[in-house]
Amino acid sequence: MNIDVILSAREIFPDKVKDKTVVVIDVLRATSVMTTALANGAKQILPVLTPEEAFDLQKEMGKENVVLGGERKAVPIPGFDFGNSPFSYSPEIIKDKTLIITTTNGTRAILNSLGAKKLLVGAFLNDRAIVEAIKNDEDVVFVASGSHDHFTMEDSLCAGKMAHDLQVLVGAQLSDVAIAMAYLYEQNKNDIHAIGSKGKHYKRLTGLGEIRDLEYCYQSDILDIVPVYKDGKLVCL
Amino acid sequence: MNIDVILSAREIFPDKVKDKTVVVIDVLRATSVMTTALANGAKQILPVLTPEEAFDLQKEMGKENVVLGGERKAVPIPGFDFGNSPFSYSPEIIKDKTLIITTTNGTRAILNSLGAKKLLVGAFLNDRAIVEAIKNDEDVVFVASGSHDHFTMEDSLCAGKMAHDLQVLVGAQLSDVAIAMAYLYEQNKNDIHAIGSKGKHYKRLTGLGEIRDLEYCYQSDILDIVPVYKDGKLVCL
Repeated sequence: MNIDVILSAREIFPDKVKDKTVVVIDVLRATSVMTTALANGAKQILPVLTPEEAFDLQKEMGKENVVLGGERKAVPIPGFDFGNSPFSYSPEIIKDKTLIITTTNGTRAILNSLGAKKLLVGAFLNDRAIVEAIKNDEDVVFVASGSHDHFTMEDSLCAGKMAHDLQVLVGAQLSDVAIAMAYLYEQNKNDIHAIGSKGKHYKRLTGLGEIRDLEYCYQSDILDIVPVYKDGKLVCL
Repeated sequence: MNIDVILSAREIFPDKVKDKTVVVIDVLRATSVMTTALANGAKQILPVLTPEEAFDLQKEMGKENVVLGGERKAVPIPGFDFGNSPFSYSPEIIKDKTLIITTTNGTRAILNSLGAKKLLVGAFLNDRAIVEAIKNDEDVVFVASGSHDHFTMEDSLCAGKMAHDLQVLVGAQLSDVAIAMAYLYEQNKNDIHAIGSKGKHYKRLTGLGEIRDLEYCYQSDILDIVPVYKDGKLVCL
């Protein structure tokens, strides 16, 4: 297995993902939300680029079956049911519903990765499940979605963790950037919040009072869910 | 001061460098060669994208004043005077001459950064001189040129070193990626070859027997030279 890492949604050049297994990561908070919603029984998730697309789809599908979720600049979108906190997507809210979601970075990263052979969504929450699901694949690319076209600490650490775990588990060959990210994770694994909190996006969420979300999203392996993107939808593998 | 880092020549999006101080780094070996050539008395360096451009310019300027240097895939170009080893550019060869150079990554990184307010070329060899030259600037971007559109360990470590040194010297604010690269450097500074040698390009050069070049290019602060790009040429600041 060869592992590469892409460090922002903007840097997903088609040749880097084509015919590979791609895992899109947006720890704070898009892919943590998606994984949580599926774990809580969501029927499917439709990631879209704009709020307008989300409203149009909701009209098509009927309000009673659909929940609209997402954010712009880490705050909820007017007219949407919920923002980007995983705690909004409890079983009472999301079970058997379709979640239509648009976020600044995560959904864009997914839609930029459509050339992949297999397209999964991961976070710390389901890191072990992802590693298990791809451990026999040949070419794996972790996409650390980043924030507004920039590298973010938490996505890169999460990519580094999975690269590290696959190196240990199946002796995966890491590209230079994967080596660097695995190193960053490995050196900080005993206090991942300490280095995470140096990141701009973590600080922004702390400023918005989203501490509970941060604590939740940094937990490793609490959800045994592998979201896979097929035909415009995310469902459980 | 704000510091950002770009991790390959391909990822130099115009808005990331516009009106900023940009330092292009290609440790193995383009910017190490350029710095060495200027330190050894080269009159100027013209970085060009293709061997054809280099031959055309040589015709224009006259063979006696010009040295052609560069590489493709780390080996010399047919018809060129020298390859990409800094040891080829001794004072006897290069003093008062114009060096026309084309390399796979470094020259492309320079030419992709022309929107910069100030465009410098750095390497480990002149890291202290670069840090001194830019310590009062407002927005600094280190471009780790990488290799064939990929992150390379040595360029990222060198960018991390300068970001780290500026943080210590003038309290520079580091972006998330700059924090990560500074950390990578800081943790490995006592044996920079150990982590450097995990990189693909380092291994490639070792395979080509270029050990002396590797040892040379990893030396910090041995040249008090700041190459600056102006009007198509690199000269000493």
